[in-house]
Amino acid sequence: MENKKQFLFALSGAAAVGFVAVIFVLRWVLHFKEGLAWDGGLAEFNWHPVLIVTGFIFLQGIAIIVYRLPWTWRCSKLVMKFIHAGLNLTAFILAIISMVAVFDFHNAAKIPNMYSLHSWLGLTAVILYGLQLVLGIGLYLIPVTPVSWRAAFMPIHVYSGLFLFTSVIAVALMGITEKLIFGLSNPKYKDSPPEAIFVNVLGVLLVVFGALILWIATRTPWKRPSEQILHSLHTNSGSEDNSKVDISTTLHNLRANLRSSNQ
Amino acid sequence: MENKKQFLFALSGAAAVGFVAVIFVLRWVLHFKEGLAWDGGLAEFNWHPVLIVTGFIFLQGIAIIVYRLPWTWRCSKLVMKFIHAGLNLTAFILAIISMVAVFDFHNAAKIPNMYSLHSWLGLTAVILYGLQLVLGIGLYLIPVTPVSWRAAFMPIHVYSGLFLFTSVIAVALMGITEKLIFGLSNPKYKDSPPEAIFVNVLGVLLVVFGALILWIATRTPWKRPSEQILHSLHTNSGSEDNSKVDISTTLHNLRANLRSSNQ
Repeated sequence: MENKKQFLFALSGAAAVGFVAVIFVLRWVLHFKEGLAWDGGLAEFNWHPVLIVTGFIFLQGIAIIVYRLPWTWRCSKLVMKFIHAGLNLTAFILAIISMVAVFDFHNAAKIPNMYSLHSWLGLTAVILYGLQLVLGIGLYLIPVTPVSWRAAFMPIHVYSGLFLFTSVIAVALMGITEKLIFGLSNPKYKDSPPEAIFVNVLGVLLVVFGALILWIATRTPWKRPSEQILHSLHTNSGSEDNSKVDISTTLHNLRANLRSSNQ
Repeated sequence: MENKKQFLFALSGAAAVGFVAVIFVLRWVLHFKEGLAWDGGLAEFNWHPVLIVTGFIFLQGIAIIVYRLPWTWRCSKLVMKFIHAGLNLTAFILAIISMVAVFDFHNAAKIPNMYSLHSWLGLTAVILYGLQLVLGIGLYLIPVTPVSWRAAFMPIHVYSGLFLFTSVIAVALMGITEKLIFGLSNPKYKDSPPEAIFVNVLGVLLVVFGALILWIATRTPWKRPSEQILHSLHTNSGSEDNSKVDISTTLHNLRANLRSSNQ
């Protein structure tokens, strides 16, 4: 892998910032807000930000870059596909539960549903994410799908994945804005009480997390090598069980050889 | 150019959606709101959404894809760089004026500045956009900058440009959310008056505009060909003044030749 140090720096940054964001959203609802419950009240609403940040943002982010982790390149592509799909499916289920929490709370408090731009874009993102999941499984996990279809759809799959991930973070920032305006009354949001500052920082963390995941996902040299290259690698290193082989170095040399033989 | 029809479809879609978004923001402030003025009141605030949508979103979007327009491939790279930089500089100036409008309004109405997540992320985006502009001009328009620096910085320049563009749209969506909550009192945002629906649609238009610009900007086959290829093209077609040459077809053939000669 080229620039492995930079990769590890970006990866550990993303993991750390994502983890801190999860801690922040938990502290927000447990310390500043009403805690968590499933009672139709504000404590049920609180599942919404918690599940969105942990599931729909953090898990989705990890799902996006899971192919980039060099220590998974020994695993078969199929195993990695299952991990990618499994993480995305988990994120989707958590997003659905988080939406049920809001609808329950709204209905109990007689607040209208689906009036805000946040709700319009959020519901659209969840529906498109579900579609992406179904199409992704249909195209890339069902063995009978023609390889030509898989290849033709891949640019759309990648673009949609990154676009939906980005959209979910944007929608979360709108949700944070709504909640801080509606949820703070004395002092108000504009008076910058500690909760306002704390949750603004959570918003900043989500943006930084998104920036790092998008950076990792869009660096071509960090892509999982093609199966052909990995196969050559295993053959060259004698045995797949040889755990002492430095995959990165061998791979780098192999890629350089391939490049020079193409010229 | 490969898939030229798809390119023209995406481009005309982006232009149309962007244009409609500009009409929407004008109708919002002129029909639903207090109009436009520079008086420290709400009509001054209204310059904020107008200049952000027309300048910081629409113009920035056009600036991003200006190299992709095949009918500009006859222009020299330097001319295109000046157009790219000029559009971005205009967008930056409009963003600054739009921010002055908000600070003026806040100060006159004794509303605190910089308390919201919208303001934090918006100011950060403007500062980073200014930095991107200065670095971009310094690296790509000042002739003495070493070519190796230009090449090394290009992935960061492209990534930052797309990330900032996306962030500005996200921040605008938060701004729309704030303004609809604070600006609608009887009926309120949650009662979905016509203004709320209208401005929600504006938000959706901004997302669609962003999605189309990002799609166009990230399709590798739609990139402006390298100067080397364009030079060969001009040489092959005899004269630069031959306006009847079908650049796209010749270029496609030339690329195919280059590919096959590399194998």
